[in-house]
Amino acid sequence: MIKAGIIGATGYAGGELVRLLLNHREAEIVWYGSRSYIDKKYYEVYQNMFQIVDARCMDDNMAQLADEVDVIFTATPQGLCASLINEEILSKAKVIDLSADFRIKDVKTYEEWYKIEHKSPQFIEEAVYGLCEINREEVKKARLIANPGCYPTCSTLSIYPLLKEGIIDGNTVIIDAKSGTSGAGRGAKVANLYCEVNENIKAYGVATHRHTPEIEEQLSYAAGYPVHINFTPHLVPMNRGILITAYASLKKDVSYEEVRAIYEKYYAKEQFVRVLDQDVCPETKWVEGSNYVDVNFKIDPRTKRIIMMGAMDNLVKGAAGQAVQNMNLMFGFPENEGLQGVPMFP
Amino acid sequence: MIKAGIIGATGYAGGELVRLLLNHREAEIVWYGSRSYIDKKYYEVYQNMFQIVDARCMDDNMAQLADEVDVIFTATPQGLCASLINEEILSKAKVIDLSADFRIKDVKTYEEWYKIEHKSPQFIEEAVYGLCEINREEVKKARLIANPGCYPTCSTLSIYPLLKEGIIDGNTVIIDAKSGTSGAGRGAKVANLYCEVNENIKAYGVATHRHTPEIEEQLSYAAGYPVHINFTPHLVPMNRGILITAYASLKKDVSYEEVRAIYEKYYAKEQFVRVLDQDVCPETKWVEGSNYVDVNFKIDPRTKRIIMMGAMDNLVKGAAGQAVQNMNLMFGFPENEGLQGVPMFP
Amino acid sequence: MIKAGIIGATGYAGGELVRLLLNHREAEIVWYGSRSYIDKKYYEVYQNMFQIVDARCMDDNMAQLADEVDVIFTATPQGLCASLINEEILSKAKVIDLSADFRIKDVKTYEEWYKIEHKSPQFIEEAVYGLCEINREEVKKARLIANPGCYPTCSTLSIYPLLKEGIIDGNTVIIDAKSGTSGAGRGAKVANLYCEVNENIKAYGVATHRHTPEIEEQLSYAAGYPVHINFTPHLVPMNRGILITAYASLKKDVSYEEVRAIYEKYYAKEQFVRVLDQDVCPETKWVEGSNYVDVNFKIDPRTKRIIMMGAMDNLVKGAAGQAVQNMNLMFGFPENEGLQGVPMFP
Amino acid sequence: MIKAGIIGATGYAGGELVRLLLNHREAEIVWYGSRSYIDKKYYEVYQNMFQIVDARCMDDNMAQLADEVDVIFTATPQGLCASLINEEILSKAKVIDLSADFRIKDVKTYEEWYKIEHKSPQFIEEAVYGLCEINREEVKKARLIANPGCYPTCSTLSIYPLLKEGIIDGNTVIIDAKSGTSGAGRGAKVANLYCEVNENIKAYGVATHRHTPEIEEQLSYAAGYPVHINFTPHLVPMNRGILITAYASLKKDVSYEEVRAIYEKYYAKEQFVRVLDQDVCPETKWVEGSNYVDVNFKIDPRTKRIIMMGAMDNLVKGAAGQAVQNMNLMFGFPENEGLQGVPMFP
Repeated sequence: MIKAGIIGATGYAGGELVRLLLNHREAEIVWYGSRSYIDKKYYEVYQNMFQIVDARCMDDNMAQLADEVDVIFTATPQGLCASLINEEILSKAKVIDLSADFRIKDVKTYEEWYKIEHKSPQFIEEAVYGLCEINREEVKKARLIANPGCYPTCSTLSIYPLLKEGIIDGNTVIIDAKSGTSGAGRGAKVANLYCEVNENIKAYGVATHRHTPEIEEQLSYAAGYPVHINFTPHLVPMNRGILITAYASLKKDVSYEEVRAIYEKYYAKEQFVRVLDQDVCPETKWVEGSNYVDVNFKIDPRTKRIIMMGAMDNLVKGAAGQAVQNMNLMFGFPENEGLQGVPMFP
Repeated sequence: MIKAGIIGATGYAGGELVRLLLNHREAEIVWYGSRSYIDKKYYEVYQNMFQIVDARCMDDNMAQLADEVDVIFTATPQGLCASLINEEILSKAKVIDLSADFRIKDVKTYEEWYKIEHKSPQFIEEAVYGLCEINREEVKKARLIANPGCYPTCSTLSIYPLLKEGIIDGNTVIIDAKSGTSGAGRGAKVANLYCEVNENIKAYGVATHRHTPEIEEQLSYAAGYPVHINFTPHLVPMNRGILITAYASLKKDVSYEEVRAIYEKYYAKEQFVRVLDQDVCPETKWVEGSNYVDVNFKIDPRTKRIIMMGAMDNLVKGAAGQAVQNMNLMFGFPENEGLQGVPMFP
Repeated sequence: MIKAGIIGATGYAGGELVRLLLNHREAEIVWYGSRSYIDKKYYEVYQNMFQIVDARCMDDNMAQLADEVDVIFTATPQGLCASLINEEILSKAKVIDLSADFRIKDVKTYEEWYKIEHKSPQFIEEAVYGLCEINREEVKKARLIANPGCYPTCSTLSIYPLLKEGIIDGNTVIIDAKSGTSGAGRGAKVANLYCEVNENIKAYGVATHRHTPEIEEQLSYAAGYPVHINFTPHLVPMNRGILITAYASLKKDVSYEEVRAIYEKYYAKEQFVRVLDQDVCPETKWVEGSNYVDVNFKIDPRTKRIIMMGAMDNLVKGAAGQAVQNMNLMFGFPENEGLQGVPMFP
Repeated sequence: MIKAGIIGATGYAGGELVRLLLNHREAEIVWYGSRSYIDKKYYEVYQNMFQIVDARCMDDNMAQLADEVDVIFTATPQGLCASLINEEILSKAKVIDLSADFRIKDVKTYEEWYKIEHKSPQFIEEAVYGLCEINREEVKKARLIANPGCYPTCSTLSIYPLLKEGIIDGNTVIIDAKSGTSGAGRGAKVANLYCEVNENIKAYGVATHRHTPEIEEQLSYAAGYPVHINFTPHLVPMNRGILITAYASLKKDVSYEEVRAIYEKYYAKEQFVRVLDQDVCPETKWVEGSNYVDVNFKIDPRTKRIIMMGAMDNLVKGAAGQAVQNMNLMFGFPENEGLQGVPMFP
């Protein structure tokens, strides 16, 4: 049984991490960090935890935390993890950062898109991008994990195989993404009020969203050349779920069976990536509460493009679930420990 | 490891039963009964089960089923279980009926409210009303469980202690209930279409809802005298959740502490009934996906009434979860086996 | 054509007032007051008004406003109208206050429930409670209108006739109310975030909600004796709409026809109160965007109680629509001018 | 005052047509056609119309109808209008067909995508595609209007100016569309049940949706060459609203101001197309209940693509509102008569 500490335990991703770790047989949470609610009972912030969690919220003291736990999760705003981390901490505890601080290898790109100075660029090289299905072996050996963003996880897993196999042209990729509102966090903003989100859909961050360079970096690895894409996220009136619909030009004529075989090659042995039956479109509801990503594709011979689709729960595979999956790999636990819950429907 | 069969596995309650039993360490589903989808892969009906359940749907053959399983769940319309059950089946397998067929002891009352002739009245006496917190010892010995209705579960657990202790007058009880739409089932009806339910709230079955006599029977046992109540259900634009707000006249002056002590007396040791802190109102979201019922109360000295509130997930504690809880008691498993999932938020 | 000014034009009720007045043939808005957005284009706050309203937001200067307009609407937090109003203002312009400041005749009751000192008690007596269907003649002559609260409007109109005619016992009245989230206003609070409200229902303000004394005062006028009730509001995941379900003990045996005749007596000639056909339950969706209140009732002979139901749009008949209706009466316009929009479905 | 008849008055588009025409000062509905509800009071199907519409539903007798009215609206499934229409009907009454029967000039394309034999190909040539902003003069003289589809209206108006001016390459156009659930109609299907749609998003009809050739035809007219596109619709958990996000490659470097000028050239004088301020993304909620289409664009210099966005109410500008706008043009009424309602928010 290892000990885990969470910094940022009262955000939506932090709360989901608590939910998942409470069902984990090899890890126990000993630190519920939340600067906003220090000393308050955790269940008073999240009443679903009433009579389940008795602990009080603690300050974000990462140095002290490193002495007490085996693994630290940071589910905090961009910049915080980079400002707190140091060699001493990393020598004592493994760190899984759910923020974007260590996802992008080029520090200038990070600073340009995030408008933040990076406080610990010396750890960027070491950090492993924790997309388990792609970087499994590196994750196992890592001290510091950059847990992927929600949109990048869904986008990369949906597109990666076809780019890697050279079937599509990377620079024709367009990703139209749709997310539930929990992705916007628990901050009290007018734009996230019930009446503003309900019965509404809109695009946001058009051509400027910060997940763009993260996706581009991963797709460039797959392609073997620099890839530039269009990425447009949309806010959907639902709590959880991300759906991406991606478009790309095919580099040659391919049959359904050929493309299917490529997806199978990459995912047939993966528990958490499900390649759906022919013509079944992914739906966010089918993966709700679980660590699955459902993917599928459709060839359009009229335009010689392929449409790739992926659905997942943004708080699970898109945040807390993938963080637990990374922890499992790092500590040699079964990769699916704590993640075996069946998706909830309806 | 026991074997379980489900008749009516493709309704919402049946689907939830599958979800819960898949996480159960002592039971395995060997029969997915669904007359509407015979021979179809179960996951084609519920894509959340893709790569999790490989079985095909079977016919509703209860006699054959009894030869193959240890426990049969019937998640079917009223009348079906009563029409299929017989002594031979009961001698081979335990039966947990999620329909109303064996909930009401007085067959005339059943036939009056349900407008159906009861086909197996001989088993009504034997059947145990499976409200575990109230009838735990009887459940353990039962062959046939009448799994309580969703509204009656939430209502009875919220009101029972105060009636049992004589604090309130049973004939002043008014229950105003609100339910998510999964309670209406998966039948294709215009009234349950998205556009009809969304952005809408309405009462239905006013003064005529079939759960009324079931609640009255349970409250009468608590009171020790015949209780008649008003019960008004409402349809709320959400998938899951039941909230009941109940009103009753106090028979004497009582303090917060006195009433609190009564609730504690009945529920302090119950895992699945949580009496919330003072002035915290139950919310359906705090119990979603779990087997909890959250209850609380407020005394109104101005009107000498007490307001009792209860929230639960209608598909879990209100149907499938309670059925699993009953199964656990009947087979001597830990009462919470398969039911330890933490409520999901948001 | 009269000139209208709105103080608090950027709240949800203020926005609705703008929407309705823009379709009004006898009134024109010349002052969009909003302290939070002074000098900002109104359409930048509410993009639905793009290319429709070109004006900028103004400060809340009621004295200056009185010089420029014929009628002032205050759609502001409790206490503001009372703190700004004076005889000079009232001598120049009519005032319709959408807050609670002048609704309750007993200033002590107001101060007790609202925890605010009343700054202009001298105008309470003069103020007319603007429930048009009940106080039409007084409204026509008024200088200062206390526009009724949303819950009180729906509750009073649903219950009033039966209490007035002595059919029910006022002190047995229990009102269980359900409201859409726009009733909570546009303030940025965690509790009103999409993810907190969606897929959730809860009671709030149990036994302590401020609309209680307002309803009691109106019902007491109807009954002719002091009435104390239970009133429990609930927050429902929808934008608009209030449904009240009210319970009361019948003082004598009555038939459907007798009760129907009473409702007809009061409402047959009222355009905005629709008494539905027998057994049709009011639904909020059927009145959305309109000034209608749909009411109906059900007698329960088993408990000798009657269940009264009412549905309306909280922002229209519950706020802005009723304010316009009051303005129409005060200025001699057709009572339904600007309010003829047909409810929108779905 | 002209007389109007509606065939298919009880679908969602038919109901919206009733709502709009009831506020129209020059037209009166005299025929509420609905084969499913013949002889039933119209308000019993749509209770929002209680005490507003007293008429009963009539059969779909188009020949008789032509004798009684000036204009016939057909809001019916594909194929019905084509099967009923004939020269005699067209000589007596103008026809506005909300189905797809006369939208596509090439009958083979129609039959291929709709899998229906066209029963009146002789009227296809004459029929005017009723996209008022593009074909205004033709509409004025038409006897038979093919009222555009919802997706094609929003897509074409968003993309048309840039294609017409040669700024973008038509064969690079990708349209990712999102629609509220009313677009799926009022048929009782499991897939449209509340619990299936709520908390869910999915693509459907990928690479095969019937609106594809309709959009392609209109875009080809704009481009002056045959255009093939990708069009992917998605189902969103909301009642009303369509948002399209379209992508295309720029044929040359253009500035924001240049593109802006093009949109202004086409829409500055149009009441119902609003080109939003720079960087303001269209949201469906801002146009709800109204005939507006809000459009905007964003240039991405990194990928040399432009992202075009459009939002509208699928039942108004996407169906009934545009039908009324067409009627207004055909009969010489002010183009916005009956369509002046301000969008409703929230």
